[in-house]
Amino acid sequence: MKRKYSVELSNVGQYVDRYMACGYNDDYSIEQLFDRAKSVKKITGCELCGTWHITEKNVEQIRDLIGSHDLQLVSIIPDYFAQRKWGHGAFTSPDPAIRQEAIRDTKVFMDICADLGGEIVTVWNGQDGYDYPFTTNYMESRTWIRDAMKECANYRKDIKLSIEYKPREPKMRSFMSDASSTLLLVNDVNEENLGVTLDFGHSIMGIENPAEAAHILKMYGNKLFHCHVNDNYGRWDDDCIAGTIHPIETTEYLYWVKRLGYDSWFSFDQYPYREDGRDALEEGIEWIETLGAVADSLDDDEVDEVIKTQNGVGFAKLIREHMFKVY
Amino acid sequence: MKRKYSVELSNVGQYVDRYMACGYNDDYSIEQLFDRAKSVKKITGCELCGTWHITEKNVEQIRDLIGSHDLQLVSIIPDYFAQRKWGHGAFTSPDPAIRQEAIRDTKVFMDICADLGGEIVTVWNGQDGYDYPFTTNYMESRTWIRDAMKECANYRKDIKLSIEYKPREPKMRSFMSDASSTLLLVNDVNEENLGVTLDFGHSIMGIENPAEAAHILKMYGNKLFHCHVNDNYGRWDDDCIAGTIHPIETTEYLYWVKRLGYDSWFSFDQYPYREDGRDALEEGIEWIETLGAVADSLDDDEVDEVIKTQNGVGFAKLIREHMFKVY
Amino acid sequence: MKRKYSVELSNVGQYVDRYMACGYNDDYSIEQLFDRAKSVKKITGCELCGTWHITEKNVEQIRDLIGSHDLQLVSIIPDYFAQRKWGHGAFTSPDPAIRQEAIRDTKVFMDICADLGGEIVTVWNGQDGYDYPFTTNYMESRTWIRDAMKECANYRKDIKLSIEYKPREPKMRSFMSDASSTLLLVNDVNEENLGVTLDFGHSIMGIENPAEAAHILKMYGNKLFHCHVNDNYGRWDDDCIAGTIHPIETTEYLYWVKRLGYDSWFSFDQYPYREDGRDALEEGIEWIETLGAVADSLDDDEVDEVIKTQNGVGFAKLIREHMFKVY
Amino acid sequence: MKRKYSVELSNVGQYVDRYMACGYNDDYSIEQLFDRAKSVKKITGCELCGTWHITEKNVEQIRDLIGSHDLQLVSIIPDYFAQRKWGHGAFTSPDPAIRQEAIRDTKVFMDICADLGGEIVTVWNGQDGYDYPFTTNYMESRTWIRDAMKECANYRKDIKLSIEYKPREPKMRSFMSDASSTLLLVNDVNEENLGVTLDFGHSIMGIENPAEAAHILKMYGNKLFHCHVNDNYGRWDDDCIAGTIHPIETTEYLYWVKRLGYDSWFSFDQYPYREDGRDALEEGIEWIETLGAVADSLDDDEVDEVIKTQNGVGFAKLIREHMFKVY
Repeated sequence: MKRKYSVELSNVGQYVDRYMACGYNDDYSIEQLFDRAKSVKKITGCELCGTWHITEKNVEQIRDLIGSHDLQLVSIIPDYFAQRKWGHGAFTSPDPAIRQEAIRDTKVFMDICADLGGEIVTVWNGQDGYDYPFTTNYMESRTWIRDAMKECANYRKDIKLSIEYKPREPKMRSFMSDASSTLLLVNDVNEENLGVTLDFGHSIMGIENPAEAAHILKMYGNKLFHCHVNDNYGRWDDDCIAGTIHPIETTEYLYWVKRLGYDSWFSFDQYPYREDGRDALEEGIEWIETLGAVADSLDDDEVDEVIKTQNGVGFAKLIREHMFKVY
Repeated sequence: MKRKYSVELSNVGQYVDRYMACGYNDDYSIEQLFDRAKSVKKITGCELCGTWHITEKNVEQIRDLIGSHDLQLVSIIPDYFAQRKWGHGAFTSPDPAIRQEAIRDTKVFMDICADLGGEIVTVWNGQDGYDYPFTTNYMESRTWIRDAMKECANYRKDIKLSIEYKPREPKMRSFMSDASSTLLLVNDVNEENLGVTLDFGHSIMGIENPAEAAHILKMYGNKLFHCHVNDNYGRWDDDCIAGTIHPIETTEYLYWVKRLGYDSWFSFDQYPYREDGRDALEEGIEWIETLGAVADSLDDDEVDEVIKTQNGVGFAKLIREHMFKVY
Repeated sequence: MKRKYSVELSNVGQYVDRYMACGYNDDYSIEQLFDRAKSVKKITGCELCGTWHITEKNVEQIRDLIGSHDLQLVSIIPDYFAQRKWGHGAFTSPDPAIRQEAIRDTKVFMDICADLGGEIVTVWNGQDGYDYPFTTNYMESRTWIRDAMKECANYRKDIKLSIEYKPREPKMRSFMSDASSTLLLVNDVNEENLGVTLDFGHSIMGIENPAEAAHILKMYGNKLFHCHVNDNYGRWDDDCIAGTIHPIETTEYLYWVKRLGYDSWFSFDQYPYREDGRDALEEGIEWIETLGAVADSLDDDEVDEVIKTQNGVGFAKLIREHMFKVY
Repeated sequence: MKRKYSVELSNVGQYVDRYMACGYNDDYSIEQLFDRAKSVKKITGCELCGTWHITEKNVEQIRDLIGSHDLQLVSIIPDYFAQRKWGHGAFTSPDPAIRQEAIRDTKVFMDICADLGGEIVTVWNGQDGYDYPFTTNYMESRTWIRDAMKECANYRKDIKLSIEYKPREPKMRSFMSDASSTLLLVNDVNEENLGVTLDFGHSIMGIENPAEAAHILKMYGNKLFHCHVNDNYGRWDDDCIAGTIHPIETTEYLYWVKRLGYDSWFSFDQYPYREDGRDALEEGIEWIETLGAVADSLDDDEVDEVIKTQNGVGFAKLIREHMFKVY
């Protein structure tokens, strides 16, 4: 199976954290980010973050860069997280004017996305969450998100809105925290163009099994809109090189999303603080290609045979024989 | 607010684990379990497990014991976990005959429950899960559970079926693992008498915030049927004395379930391996009464004021002033 | 490199948990356990648990079984966890008579071990820990363990005592919880025949990296006495088939313990509740052989080159090229 | 008992994370930070970070500010984490020149600390760690840290060096990750003026029990040099308001460090991204004072009585009666 790969442009850029505010690497201009992404063989699409890469003012520049680099715009992720006004939430800010701005920005970027030939606006509303008990009326917050998603989804039906859930960070708890709780809201909104982005690492850090999360998104409404790949140690969004920490879960996930009919992008969302992001992206693709080849080498009947007996030994033998050079 | 307390009878019994198969305490007869439960002031209801406490054969004995101890039967939890046949799943066993048995047993205990004046049959299907990747067709398994729940819920509408989710144990991953994924299935079944049991500890070990889980269950279908109390360290179902590890989250949970209109039982599900279970139950009630009194002392307006500003300092001050003897 | 494999006999036996007290599989006699272990090609050694497999009374039977099965006795693990008297601790029981019994049993099994040609008595003191804050004087408990280890290590110097640490279970917290805290006690005792057993899964569940733990045990006193293999999901002692969850960490661990000069046994400590233990053991050996071959295929200079640049991309490329059939 | 409180100045400043690089709050000048810290009643000491607050060039300004605000300099934390050169480690950088700079800076700040009337230089070497398997020679890295600590501790004996361990962040794994592994290195160095800083939150996120960690640091070399207070949810260094997540563990910790003879500073290390840091500090002190009063109200004999029986029910009753306003 031929997989399509895109990259969120920050992957090949500079990385900061709360200690190293100056950044671990070099700074790159937006042109350089496009050059670096494009230099990676097999990258044919890109995702752009609001504020960081795309604003209402640089649309023409971005159009030129996408064109000159022959990349498809896969998704725009509006900024709901990097401006101080969002500090207490975007769609769930206590300030109704801020909530309105979040809605307005979403619509603006839906228009820009369509204008640039994109299909998906990703809603990663990382500041919509809470830090402490007794600081949130959970039902009111979820209602605010629902109403905003309803309004935006209806704004134009030719652009998909896809909520990217994540259990925590930057807030200590996110409202859109896992596949199922996000899906409950999505199904409550009930618009065809509203769905869910499954970020492999977010799923892992939320103690989900990503392959199972994909089934749930498929099963209750066919809402698996988009896939992000990366990896982590299961406790934090380390955004490691894809496949390198959970190769077997990654293989199962690649196997099942294919079998479930997902034929869209695998978009990289790595954040290799202390590596060169371009090299890490290139290597991440090699891992997904390698583990994808393992997944593709599995015969559905073989897999179903193991499933029929729920046999851990059968699983271990099957994967060992398909995965490893030496066995 | 006056809270009603019941107890799953194992709480006051013997405790085993995989090492101490002989048990940490004394063995108790079913009569002794009733005596011990009843001896705890404020206990007015009981929950019974299939096989361990109630079978098709001892219904008359149980009727007598309930009557003579003046306890209300709050729930029966059929055994889907303690007989070898369930080892590879009950409702999701690869063997269709086993799956049928799980359905049959559920109906049998619905009848018994009604006969004994109970209202709820709790479905804690702990063996319905998986240990390894590639050993499950997630969609098929969830469909089996859904179809079974549909059939059972329709069997008789005067008995509530309530699924008690838990992230793992005994299987390394459960299908009914958290509030939201369980609710998706429950809403797919769409029967009025099918809902969800929120076990505080299961929620904590699944990195949920129980107060938020209660909102989700309320918000999407009014499905918060039943509440279990206990506590743990966030990594395993330690079944500690209620309130003693997460007193503040417990207080928030008691506050919100009340505000959301829950006025039913708080059922104890502790498993104090190395304590006397009766004493631990008595002490657990004291903790819930104490933290419940803290919750009751909070004025909704005060809480809403903190929420309006999403202010962690406001939370900390509010709780400190209401909670502690010395401040 | 040729690795030596042994097995703790429970691996091929019956498995129980707190729900399935009747066991998930068949019961096996001690003779059958030996037969099943021996039937696995490459198993040349065995470990025996007190009470479960060996007692003061069946030494002659065990001698015969070891002999007739041509297995080497690798270790005896006295029972400090499966008899009710140990419920509040063995070496740290509040009852001094129980503490004395733990010491006495250790000496008895040191004698039996020597008598049967074994070299190591493993001290897995799982009940020496605590469940709640304020229930332990940590310094007194650690002193009790230290004094007991001192006395036992001095009892006879020709038998090694090796403490197997584990972060929790059965107690919610263990005193001998990780490599470093165990080593502090071991070095305080300061006897040549007292060391540490590194159980891969215990290390993983304690958020250690087992390869790093091995270095620490080596570095501060050369105390890596013994290695157990298995795997888990990082939150509990799932005792999965070795290698199947953390193949890369397992490979790093196999690589480094070899490079650090460890040339002793890899002893299986799996507990595959719902599989046939014999088959799971056979498969586990295949995984360790496979991942060991990956480790053996790494040239030290190649590894050192990656280390010299601390380069995650270099790691990912190196392992990908050595590990996978397809890349 | 009267407790002494100090504050690391960042606590009352601006907070950034990898998304909100612009900061959640206002920027404050160094003068403002001193003003804000001083405005909190009960704060009598301060800790200063290299680069952020103190450099070789602003020593006289800092001397004036300390003096004019009547604060005691409790500790200087040299910067080993916020300049790009430290990205691959400070004491463990692959580049020997960087390693020398880390040593040199430590000595410089030891001199400055002494000059300004301080007693402790805190070594929080957060970049000394690793992200991936196979990228580190663990023994070599630990040797570099040991040799550096030896050299620095010997540089002048009138200043204490105190290593602040932390399991992870910014690196995915730290070398100085927990109390015991840090202590092994400290004891290997074996200099009287080298010890350990116990940060409550770092201990909690490392699945330690801080009260137990304090015992270990006391027991093997009397190395509990300094205490930081804050709190988190057990999975990440959330740096919450002290006491608000783990009030009972905090109480046990305050109880035992007092009983173990610790009579030095409790230094606040909160990082309340979305609150006003000054208010959060004031509130954190109230929590420590409140929980400290609970700890002080416990009679040692009462505690020892619970310990003597290892009784969880006894613990629960004792704490409930001493802690809560309503019971």
